[in-house]
Amino acid sequence: MELHAFTPAEEINLRINRIKNLMTEAMLDGILLSTNANIYYTAGRVFDGFVYIPADGDAQYLIRRPNDLTGQGAAKIRKPEQIMEILAQKGLPSPHKLGLELALVDFLTVRRLSAAFPGSQVEDASAIMRAARAVKTDFEVEQIRRSAIKHCIIYKKIPKLYQEGMSDVELQIEIEHTSRLEGCLGQFRVAGNSMEIHMGSVLVGPNADAPSPYDFSMGGAGLDPSLPVGADGTIIRPGMTVMVDTNGDFTGYMSDLTRVFTPENVDELALKAHQCSIDICHAIAREAKPGAKASALYEMAQDIVKSRSLERYFMGYSQKAGFIGHGVGIDINELPVLSPKSHDILQLNNVIALEPKFVIPEVGAVGIENTYVVRADGLECLTDMTEDIIRLE
Amino acid sequence: MELHAFTPAEEINLRINRIKNLMTEAMLDGILLSTNANIYYTAGRVFDGFVYIPADGDAQYLIRRPNDLTGQGAAKIRKPEQIMEILAQKGLPSPHKLGLELALVDFLTVRRLSAAFPGSQVEDASAIMRAARAVKTDFEVEQIRRSAIKHCIIYKKIPKLYQEGMSDVELQIEIEHTSRLEGCLGQFRVAGNSMEIHMGSVLVGPNADAPSPYDFSMGGAGLDPSLPVGADGTIIRPGMTVMVDTNGDFTGYMSDLTRVFTPENVDELALKAHQCSIDICHAIAREAKPGAKASALYEMAQDIVKSRSLERYFMGYSQKAGFIGHGVGIDINELPVLSPKSHDILQLNNVIALEPKFVIPEVGAVGIENTYVVRADGLECLTDMTEDIIRLE
Repeated sequence: MELHAFTPAEEINLRINRIKNLMTEAMLDGILLSTNANIYYTAGRVFDGFVYIPADGDAQYLIRRPNDLTGQGAAKIRKPEQIMEILAQKGLPSPHKLGLELALVDFLTVRRLSAAFPGSQVEDASAIMRAARAVKTDFEVEQIRRSAIKHCIIYKKIPKLYQEGMSDVELQIEIEHTSRLEGCLGQFRVAGNSMEIHMGSVLVGPNADAPSPYDFSMGGAGLDPSLPVGADGTIIRPGMTVMVDTNGDFTGYMSDLTRVFTPENVDELALKAHQCSIDICHAIAREAKPGAKASALYEMAQDIVKSRSLERYFMGYSQKAGFIGHGVGIDINELPVLSPKSHDILQLNNVIALEPKFVIPEVGAVGIENTYVVRADGLECLTDMTEDIIRLE
Repeated sequence: MELHAFTPAEEINLRINRIKNLMTEAMLDGILLSTNANIYYTAGRVFDGFVYIPADGDAQYLIRRPNDLTGQGAAKIRKPEQIMEILAQKGLPSPHKLGLELALVDFLTVRRLSAAFPGSQVEDASAIMRAARAVKTDFEVEQIRRSAIKHCIIYKKIPKLYQEGMSDVELQIEIEHTSRLEGCLGQFRVAGNSMEIHMGSVLVGPNADAPSPYDFSMGGAGLDPSLPVGADGTIIRPGMTVMVDTNGDFTGYMSDLTRVFTPENVDELALKAHQCSIDICHAIAREAKPGAKASALYEMAQDIVKSRSLERYFMGYSQKAGFIGHGVGIDINELPVLSPKSHDILQLNNVIALEPKFVIPEVGAVGIENTYVVRADGLECLTDMTEDIIRLE
């Protein structure tokens, strides 16, 4: 099978060149990637092995499995100790400074990979990869747009999936089922290996305020101590909100989308907070242009919340999240991060999810989340569907 | 919320003492755990933070999130730099030799954790944790048994889920849906962060022979280059086999179960290979007692395969896997490993999955996989259901 069958060569070149520019700034002579997300980014498909990018020269694909991949730059490998020899055969020198994914790869593997480059000084390449991937190519934006379109199709079907007396888990299972039938791949990619959430979350009523192990706006007690997050079996009842934030991976690139549903009208405070979330998204969408400070956008949201005296409920009630938005792409947690201490500056073609959410005790969670592209004149919304609270039929 | 609400204190003590015994052998004075699976093992629930186990003294639970956990040994923490101070307040000395999960935690985090213990010599604790977790407590065996019972209930329903003309993906989605409704948590835990497979795999006909990126017995091309494994949309047709190997995580502890289905009788070679798989499992089940060498059990399987001239098809056709069985528990890939170079010796209360499988080109994959407990007189099967090829109605 052709290694590069799935992604146009010019697209891969665009990405590799973006990485090379960042390598030059960091004075790295080569970087070696071995995590699925970065291999997918630089090869256009996942394989078990390594991608080596020299500062000067073509990217090399060193493949352990599957055993049938061929194509430009492809070579078979069994173990990391062969890397230097293979690169030498291809006429590539040993890098003086070598970048490895130090924030993603376990300590023992880093030690083994470092030993496979005996003359090289090892530095971090994770930050470079995060920076490269934060600015999407047009091709990548289209992958996210395709996911977002399907994501909206699923959410529009949710009122039909609902039946009176259902629990949060039962509704979530029907959403997952419908998503998978519509082409959702199921995989929910999170950079780093600490966050486990299966296919996303459905939070109903008081469970929205149960604190979770993760830096989410919302929590949920979950069904089991091994996975203490999200739906916990709460029955959906009148006056409660149902916040749906489930998996948008239809293309290998994820969209992130949250909408709120309810079986009957919810109280004034919840409606007011929900409207505040919509207004924050619209306000940020106008201001979030290339050059905008991510921290300033966070403060802008806080100012709107304070002007409406909703601070107590913003980004959680019993436990609060420390951000209102994040980059999204191959992983759900990419750059930039919209938090008070973020040093990120928005760039053209960042793709970000904004999620200014509120927890109203007993009622549940309200607010929206959309996925946007940063354009010259502000944000373009990829998750185009009603933002109001949606009635469950 | 009470930190220890979910698992009896005596069960946690049993596990901690097992770890402490291994720490003594390795001369470690303390180990610090931060991965979900090891936190779940030592605390009985997942949280964001650290478990510190001193060689001498009680386990300490340093919790970042959720913010409402209390109980014996629990303390709040914001960042790793506070660990030493918190331990000192509890009267615990700085460890001379500190164990960290070097095979599981990224390089930069290990560096940061090491710096938080300035006087300590850092060694690996991953191997100790793998060894401790390889021998299950009775409580853990019961968790796996409960998963296995549900797992079998799902597989027995598969003939009813099938409809003529279905693709592998369509059948898989119905299996996932039924599994979730029966209580499957969805999370498919794999130690290390390289293997991505969502909720398992359904392999039909020639797709069983498509090589995957992982060291599986079976492959599958998958639906997308971001997740090139498993079902690829192949329509289930007469003469093909349907191998189902999907998620058995119903309790936080996983069972591993494979059965083969077919819409119509399959050819002689496939039947012969399937019977060979059953015979291998039964033969190993008699011999796999405490003290047995994992590598010898692997060789035993190979001998049976050779005696029936089926080597060409065993553990893959175009690409072969290097093992026929593996430990299972919180993760799908635990110890012991049944491979030719394994140094593992079977111990009482190991829980292992045996999966001697075959790929017959064009027909598909055949063979079974069961989850067993190692008892004094051989293996006890936890996945108790017919082992024959099952007719899809």
